Parts: sequence; C-alpha cells; structure tokens
Amino acid sequence: MASLAIETANQEIPDLEKSRLAEKAQWVLNAPEPPSLWRELMDSAREAVLPRGKRFPHLKGKDGLFKTVISVLKTMFPIFSWCRHYKATDFKNDLLAGLTLASLCIPQSIGYATLAKLDPQYGLYSSVIPPLIYAVMGTSRDIAIGPVAVVSLLMSSMVPKLEDPEANPIAYRNLVLTTTFFAGIFQAAFGLFRLGFLVDFLSHAVIVGFVSGAAIVIGLQQMKGLLGIAHFTNKTDVISVIQAIWRSVHHSWNPHDFILGCSFLSFIIITRFVGKRNRKLFWLPATAPLISVLLSTLLVYLTRADKHGVVIIKHVKKGLNPGSIHELQLNHPHIGEVAKIGLVVAVIAITEAIAVGRSFASMKGYRINGNQEMVAFGFMNILGSFTSCYVATGSFSRSAVNFSAGCETAMSNIVMAITVIISLELFTRLLFFTPISVLSAIILSALPGLVDLHGAHNIWKIDKLDFLVCIGAFFGVLFASVEIGLLAAVAISFVKIIIISIRPGTEVLGRLPGTDIFCDVNQYPMAVKNPKALIIRVKSGLLCFANANFVREKIMKWATEEEENDSKEKRTVQVVILDMSNLMNIDTSGIASLLELQNNLASGGMELAITNPKWQVIHKLRLANFVTKMGGRVFLTVGEAVDACLDAAMASV
Amino acid sequence: MASLAIETANQEIPDLEKSRLAEKAQWVLNAPEPPSLWRELMDSAREAVLPRGKRFPHLKGKDGLFKTVISVLKTMFPIFSWCRHYKATDFKNDLLAGLTLASLCIPQSIGYATLAKLDPQYGLYSSVIPPLIYAVMGTSRDIAIGPVAVVSLLMSSMVPKLEDPEANPIAYRNLVLTTTFFAGIFQAAFGLFRLGFLVDFLSHAVIVGFVSGAAIVIGLQQMKGLLGIAHFTNKTDVISVIQAIWRSVHHSWNPHDFILGCSFLSFIIITRFVGKRNRKLFWLPATAPLISVLLSTLLVYLTRADKHGVVIIKHVKKGLNPGSIHELQLNHPHIGEVAKIGLVVAVIAITEAIAVGRSFASMKGYRINGNQEMVAFGFMNILGSFTSCYVATGSFSRSAVNFSAGCETAMSNIVMAITVIISLELFTRLLFFTPISVLSAIILSALPGLVDLHGAHNIWKIDKLDFLVCIGAFFGVLFASVEIGLLAAVAISFVKIIIISIRPGTEVLGRLPGTDIFCDVNQYPMAVKNPKALIIRVKSGLLCFANANFVREKIMKWATEEEENDSKEKRTVQVVILDMSNLMNIDTSGIASLLELQNNLASGGMELAITNPKWQVIHKLRLANFVTKMGGRVFLTVGEAVDACLDAAMASV
Repeated sequence: MASLAIETANQEIPDLEKSRLAEKAQWVLNAPEPPSLWRELMDSAREAVLPRGKRFPHLKGKDGLFKTVISVLKTMFPIFSWCRHYKATDFKNDLLAGLTLASLCIPQSIGYATLAKLDPQYGLYSSVIPPLIYAVMGTSRDIAIGPVAVVSLLMSSMVPKLEDPEANPIAYRNLVLTTTFFAGIFQAAFGLFRLGFLVDFLSHAVIVGFVSGAAIVIGLQQMKGLLGIAHFTNKTDVISVIQAIWRSVHHSWNPHDFILGCSFLSFIIITRFVGKRNRKLFWLPATAPLISVLLSTLLVYLTRADKHGVVIIKHVKKGLNPGSIHELQLNHPHIGEVAKIGLVVAVIAITEAIAVGRSFASMKGYRINGNQEMVAFGFMNILGSFTSCYVATGSFSRSAVNFSAGCETAMSNIVMAITVIISLELFTRLLFFTPISVLSAIILSALPGLVDLHGAHNIWKIDKLDFLVCIGAFFGVLFASVEIGLLAAVAISFVKIIIISIRPGTEVLGRLPGTDIFCDVNQYPMAVKNPKALIIRVKSGLLCFANANFVREKIMKWATEEEENDSKEKRTVQVVILDMSNLMNIDTSGIASLLELQNNLASGGMELAITNPKWQVIHKLRLANFVTKMGGRVFLTVGEAVDACLDAAMASV
Repeated sequence: MASLAIETANQEIPDLEKSRLAEKAQWVLNAPEPPSLWRELMDSAREAVLPRGKRFPHLKGKDGLFKTVISVLKTMFPIFSWCRHYKATDFKNDLLAGLTLASLCIPQSIGYATLAKLDPQYGLYSSVIPPLIYAVMGTSRDIAIGPVAVVSLLMSSMVPKLEDPEANPIAYRNLVLTTTFFAGIFQAAFGLFRLGFLVDFLSHAVIVGFVSGAAIVIGLQQMKGLLGIAHFTNKTDVISVIQAIWRSVHHSWNPHDFILGCSFLSFIIITRFVGKRNRKLFWLPATAPLISVLLSTLLVYLTRADKHGVVIIKHVKKGLNPGSIHELQLNHPHIGEVAKIGLVVAVIAITEAIAVGRSFASMKGYRINGNQEMVAFGFMNILGSFTSCYVATGSFSRSAVNFSAGCETAMSNIVMAITVIISLELFTRLLFFTPISVLSAIILSALPGLVDLHGAHNIWKIDKLDFLVCIGAFFGVLFASVEIGLLAAVAISFVKIIIISIRPGTEVLGRLPGTDIFCDVNQYPMAVKNPKALIIRVKSGLLCFANANFVREKIMKWATEEEENDSKEKRTVQVVILDMSNLMNIDTSGIASLLELQNNLASGGMELAITNPKWQVIHKLRLANFVTKMGGRVFLTVGEAVDACLDAAMASV
C-alpha cells in the first residue's frame, strides 16, 4: 500500500523535469578543466608586465614601432600627454596655486629638515628636484611634493642608530642620502615589477593608527624647539621623550622661546579657523606660516632676542642643490641596515603619497596609475639622492592647499620649485634670525590634521578587529618605536585573515517563502527549514587543513543533535546538503575531511549531498574520486538537491 | 515617441511583481543585527568548554548532581562505559590481539629506546604504564600505545643539544623524562582547554612529507647499528649522517653485524609478503621481530659472536618501572628549551595518535573524542614521566597489527602491558646476547610503511600547492633538522592561505539557459552574458585591505575594457552588478574600496549594484552608510538586480 503511494508520487514528477535535472547535474560534473596553477601564474605575470594585454594590437611594422615608442614615452612621461592641451587659463590657476604652495612649503621644509636632524637648506633642496621630476613623470594633478613630517620622523628615529647626528653630522647626512637612494631604488622597483600591492598591506586602519601615533611623537619632539631645550633624547617613544622634557623643564628651558612659539602657533591656528569660515580666504591659513617666519625673524632681528637665549637658525647655505653622488655610502659597514631603513621609508612614503593622490583624483573624477606613480617617486628620490635631497613624497596638508588653491596640473609643483630656487639663491640670508621655536610651531600646527579621531571612531563602529589593528599601530608607535608599531599592526592584520579563515562559522539554510532561494535562517528569520534535510553552508572561501576538521565536527554535531532533539519521534534528518556556493578552493585535507564526513553520516544512516561546487572545487573533488565515493549526489541548486534526495530516500523506504 | 514605448514597457511589469521585488530587497536590508564580536567570542568559548550545551538539561537537584558526577566520570574514564557490556568472547579476541601486539611491541620498544639514545629497558617501561592509563581514559578501541619511531627520533635529535647522551647519560635521561613531563602537560592542557584545533595545523600534506623524511632519517640512523659503527654523529640531517657513515665504512665497521642484520631484515620482509598473500597468517609478520630476536640471540649465545665484535645489548635492568618523580629537572637552566621540545613532541605525538585513531575508528564506524584523547595522552605521559617512561603515543604499525589481530577494546593494550611486565620481571636476562644489528633490522623493517609515495602522488595530482608544503616538510627534515622541516611546512601552509586570500580571482557571470541562475561563464560555457550588465563575483570569502584594491582595479579594468571593445558602437555596459553571495566578511579597507569603485563607475556613467550580501557584510555596509551612498541598489538575487537596474536605466534615457 505504502509503496504504491510512493510510486504514484514519483510518477508525479514528469520525466521531462527529471531529464532536465540530470542535464543540470551534468553541467556541474562536466565543467571544462580549470587553468592549471602554472597557467595561472603565467597569466598573472603577463598581466602584471603588460597591464592591458591588447595594448598595441593594431600597430605593426616600422610605423608601429615608432608609435609604440611614442606610447611608452607617453606612459613614462605623462607630461607629454597633458602639456599639448595646456592653456593659458590653466597656467594662471597653476601659478596662483604654486605660489601659495611655495609660501607654505618653504617654512615647512625647513622645519621638517630640522625634525630629520639635518641642516635647514636640505629641506629646501628636497623641495626643488623631486617636484620637478614628479611634474614630468607623475600622474596625479593635485599632489604637492616635498619633505613630509612622518618620513622626517622615520629618518630621525632610525638612522641615528647607525650614526650619531650630533657627534658626526656629515656622516649622518651621508647616511640619510644613502637611505634616500635605497628608498628610490625600492620605489622604482615596486613600480617596474608591478609590486604595488605591497603597499596595500598597510591597511586603512594601520595608517590611521600609525599616523595618529606618529603625530603625537612628532609633537613631543617639537617640545625641544618650543622650549629651547639644549640636550634632548634620540629615542622617539613617548616615555623617553616625556622623561627628557621633564628633566629639561626642571633645569634649562627658555621662556622667550616658549612665548614666541606659542604666540605664532595661536596665530596660525586662528587663521585656519578664519579660512574655514570664509572659503575665499583660503590663502590666509596657507600663507600664515610664511607670515609667521617673516614677522618672528623681524622681531628677533629688531630686539636681538638671540642674545637673550632665543635659539635661531643662523646660517642657511645659499645657492642651488650641490651634487651629492659621491657622498652615497654604498660601502658602509651597515649597508644592509641602511637598505632596510630605505625599504621602510619607501613603503611609508609611497603609502602616504598614493593615499593622497587617490583621494584627490577620486574627488576630481580622474584615475592615477599606481605603478607609474611608484616609478615616478622612485626616480625622483634616486635623482634626489644625487642632488642633496632627502626622501620627498606627497604631503597631505600641502596637497590640500594645492587643491583648494585651484591647481589644474602638476605645473603648480614646477612653479613651487622655481620659487624655492629663487629663495635659495636670494633670500637665505634673511633666515639667519628666524627662531627655531616658530618652526616648531609651524610643524605643531600641521599635526592636528594627522590625528584622525573621526576615522578611528568609524573603524570602531564598523569593525572591531580592524580597530584592534589601528590601536596596535597607535600604541606600538607611541610606546615602542616607529618600526615596531608598523610591524605589529601588519602582523595583527595578517593574523586576522588567518583567524577568520581557520574559524569559519557555519549557517543553516532555509527556503525563503514563495521562492526557490535558500538563505541563512538567522539572517532571514522568515526562511523555513526543511525537517528532513539539514542544509548547511560553511562561512569560508577555503576548506583547508586549518578549518576542515572543525567544520566536519560542527556539521556532525548538528546532524546528530537534530536527531537527539527529535529522539522521541522517529529520526527526521535523512540528508545533509552542503551548499558549496561560497567555497572557492579546497585542499587535500579538506577533501579527506569531506570523505570522513560522508562516512560518519553514512554510519548514522544519513546521506551527504553537495550543491553548486565551484570550478576548482569540483575539479579537485573529481580528481580525488570523491564524487564517485559519495554516490554522485552533486547538484546545481539546493532546491534540486532537496527534491532529488528526499525523493530517493522515500523511494528506498 | 520613445518615452511612450518605455512607459508601456514599464507598465508590462505588474505592480504586484514590483512590490514583491521591493519586499525582497527589504528582507536584505532589514536583516536582524548579527551577533557582536564579543557575543561570538563568548559563544565559542562556552561551546569549547561545554561541547554539548544541553548536556544535562533534565537533571536537577541532588539526584541530578549524582548523575552529573557519573556522567563526567564516564566522559573522563570511558572504560566505565564499555566494561559493563564486556563479554567473554570480546576478551578472547582481545587476549589474542594483546599477545600478538606484545610480541611486536617488545623488540620494537627496545629498538626505539636505542634510537632515542636511552637504555633498552626504558622502551619496555614506556610500554607498561602508558597503555594501562590509556586503556582507562582513551576513546579509541584499536590504537596500540607505546614508544614510536618519529618521537624517538625527535628526542634523540633535540635533547642532545642540551645534554650529551654519551658524556652524561643520566643527565640526558633525566632531561628526556622532563621533556616527557612537559609533553604530557601540554597534551592535557590542549584537551582541557579544547585547543585540539592546534593539531590541525599539521595538515595531511605536512604529515606525509614529514613522516617520509623522518623515515629516511631514522633509516640512516640505523646504519650505526647495522654496520656496528662505534663513533657516529649526533646530527640528523642527511648530509652529516652520510658523511659519518662514509667515514666509518672506510675505517671501522663490522661485517658480522651487517650480515646478521641483513639476514633478519630479509626474513622479516619475507614474512610480511607471506602475511599479505595469506590473510590467515597475519600473526607471522607480527611475530617475526620476536622470532628474529630469539633466533639471533640464540645464535650469538651459541657462537659467542660477541667475542668477534658483534655488538650486543648486554645488561637490561630487571624489574618493573622504578619511580622517577625526583629525577625531573624542573630547575634546569635551559628549562625553557626543554619546554619547547616538550611542545614539539606533544604536537607530533598527538597528531600521529589522532590520525591513527581516526582512521581505524572510521573503518569500524565509531567516533573518537579528540579532546578526551588529548587528555588521556596527557595524563599517560605525565604519569609516565613519574615512572621512568619516555613519550608514548599511538603507533601506526602496531595499531594496524592490533586491528588485524581482531582487537575489540582497549583491553588488548592491558594484555600487552601485562605481558611486558612479565617479560620485565622474568626474561630480561635472555636479552643479554641480543645483537643490536637485529634491533636495527626491526626498526628498518617498519620504515617502508612510513614512506607514503602513493599519498604524495595523490597530493601532487589534486593540489600542487599542497604538494609544495609536503615537499617543504620532506626536504626540511632531510637537509636541515626535524624542527626546521616542521616549521617550514607549517609556515608554507599559512602563507598559502594568505596568498589565496590576497590574490583572489574574479569571475564574470552569465545566465544559464532556461533558468534564473547566474554562473561563472568559464565554468559553464553554456551561460549567456548580458551585454548591458557586467555581473562580477570575487572569488574570495573576504574583501579586506590585502585584496580590496586589487579587486577594485580588476573590476574597473573589465568595465572599461568592455567599453573599449565596443567603442565603435555606443557604450553598452550600463550597470556593474557585484554578486556578494560568497563574501563572508569585509573590513573598513574593503568598504573604502567599494566606495571608490562606486565613484569611479559613476564618473564613467555606470551604476554599481550589489546582490545577496551576507549577514556581516550588509550589517557593516549599513553601518558605513554605504547603502545610502550607492543609492540603495541592493538586491537579493542577480536576476532581480539585472531586471531592476536595466529597467531603471531605460526609464532614465
């Protein structure tokens, strides 16, 4: 009687439907072979070298060669592309932006050179050659090139471990130039070998934490200038620096320096508020640093305050960048260490510049070419190291000024560089009486923009683990050192990826009412579970050695628990359906675990079915003979698996 | 005219259909909040401590407490569960299996003790206490406990770095006991704190490579005994060992030892072939080692070959395990190193034992409890270290013998231990003339079973990257050291996970003919692409800092290339649909990248839509306000997204 009813039920599924089901299962099973590992490696290598495979498909012969050369030149030197359409109105805008930029750049460059423990003129040198080269090779229209705070801090915290800047300033300077050379080599290599993805390892969260920490460290370093302290620590961690300040406050500090610095700091901050209130006065905060330098220099000159202990810059060497190619210390005993510092500086400098470039490009709606940017930064730093420049990169604060001053192209950088050249030739003597404390005030005034509290709060709100990375970088920089902070943050980031991969959740699926769609019953509370089929999806893209056993045990627990819950009635779960639609790859441990799962389920009287396996997965499962071992229960959709398995189970009762 | 046609087309979609579409989109957008990170952590911690949350739901009050205690005792000591149903027939089988096991275990234990550079009786001691404890606490019915080759090799390669076994054998032995103590502590801790997943880090591929390499290293170590070499190297890498053998072959080796060893090695191998041919003679290969020991001892005794230079065991201490609790060196200056060795040994020992236990359990259709196993191994090694045993674990070769001899329960281990006790009390004097070369032959005969060529070939066939891990472990063990081989392999395994995560492929989806299912057009060549909608899925479970930019650039390239290909006609791609059905999680960098993608697409006149975002993903996208910023184009299925977006695009033309 019962078997008759089942036969009738089976008859109800039309044969046509059945054959369609079988056809779809064949689609899954007879997928073409996926590309081999070797083929994939070759493809991605070719793609990296020739980012657009079909770049010159229509160019052939002699004429083609010429055009190819032109095209490569245009890629290497984007100036050839944009200067042909360059108009007089563009130049008017760039001139205005360049001059505004120069007025901010000159005092900042001198300040950052002091932060990097170099003579002031080196900051100015670094605002001449690098911007000129970037203007020729770079692809961003808004970025402002020159020395920046974080890179200067990195230099002053890492190079002194090899050479004392106070005992032997020339050797220290030569090492800084050598570091710049290595940083340029690394940057150019990243670009040429398409290794730009390395920059991605410093995630948004790492940068927010790192830059905030660095800003506080830089701020504390400025206490030296602001308080006129003579003997300061070479370390950068908060505890050492606060101790050094504490000692000095009790012994030797200069109230004149402090008052001068604080007054001009207040002045710069007030102009910034005014500039924010009235957008037309954008030039006021941009020129405030230069105005501060001029006013304070005049003040010191008139009152001869240097006689009362106010520390002044004194001599700034006049004239253009001297050559420095013979000062590179490529035979230095610690050359490996120098190269390591160069690598760290290169990565940080590129990260900052590309972040800056991308954000302004996205505002104006054009795209920058990441690899070409790295080549440009590399060349500008290599040539910079030959001409007495230390590492230059894109500055966030000055790029913002450049943008709001209405720059059109990289021409504003050329205008800025020419202005700096003129200053170097004519006005260096004017800087003799400039007080150091005002330079400190200028650097301090740029720091609040680096501490991104809003960004940190956003990260906390969205992703707690990301916030952990951010905090790791922040405290690492504050309490250990700049390198340790970075390393810790990158390490936490990768451990995060691994933890997410090895402890995946699993979700039980149910059918959404009125559809043939199966979804997580927790995410979609309206989804209805099938009492006879346990449908499970693993929340991971990878079923591998590190998570396969965990997943297997979890599935077994569910399958047997569902059984126990209903132990008073007869056992209900007849089939466990594993939805593989999100599983991108599997390894041999994963397959072994699936096989064990299949055996365990079979010994409990249950069947295992899999649905929608992806290309690599079904290929490997077929190679491992798993499909045959599990009785070929492979389906395209969960719905088909449920129907087919429950029909089969009923037929076999 | 045109607008009229569109209006009519719009009218064709019934309002009911539209409202259903909107309802489904609301299902996606209004999902309940997923559990917070904190909640998830607590849940997984509770689950780890109480593996089955509702274990005693029906037990309350005094009676319940009693039952709880009983239940905990039953979990801790599974012998209470199985001994109540234990029958006489079971005992008959276990007795036979236990005796067969003992006959293999006694010569192997002596041999492995020699491999571990300990006196022979320590191998026998380790076959007494650990099997007895395991029989009470373990959950496997087939595993045979005692010293094993790989663990003995680990001991003899790592402990001599701290204490020379030849110069100071007592201090060396005490350190080995201390290592055993630590190994036990670690194993018990893994079990109690549910850290069993750590064992998974040694993937199947690592174990195949590692054990094969270790087998070759062990084989080469046996050359010392087989050739009767007096001075040998303490290192384990192939090059050092072959050099040591080469030197000895030219100077001092004993042909009698060699002939004796080779003869009995041939005998054991021949019996194995006979045993394989005729399944009823399974006892022949199992007892061949004992027969070899007896015959060779008799031979040496009768011919007094020891006078001609054949190396013999000489004195084996009589009597049961002496206490050794006072010999543990917990104040040793290198206690940290000792603990580290203990950790390595603990992990390797557990891995081997659980692999053995699981494979036999799966054959007989029962399940072993991983965490309880670890607790059992831990206690047996802790108590072992108090009674002069070194690290014991489940032996693969002896468990196979136990299984084929027809064991029923862990009682066979008890029978074996009692047999070893009797031998220790009565027969140790018989071992005086046993030649070392025969022990080496016994160990050598067990090695071919460890080199899993078939397994390695399978790994190569299925997964090339897994094979790299396997080869890494193999060559690491052969040419560097045991620890470096393991570390290298585990490191490669994790780097593999990271590489797969940070370089995900992307696939273009098309509609399978006659269905509403969208699949990878490469995997399913019959799938049809929509010319106006570019449907993309990222082949990764995680969109994070390390892959987000890569993915964004790839999508942009596709979107613009499709445009360029059709540049002669009018632009066709109007909407880019990102199918997120396989995306389990996203971080702030991933969201930032999506936002940039949305801006880039918008500036190219294209729209971005997302479909089927998972719980965590839609939650974070909502928190980051992304859904509003992208205009709310979130859908449940790709089909709905295609219809809705193309309708909207047509309406806005």
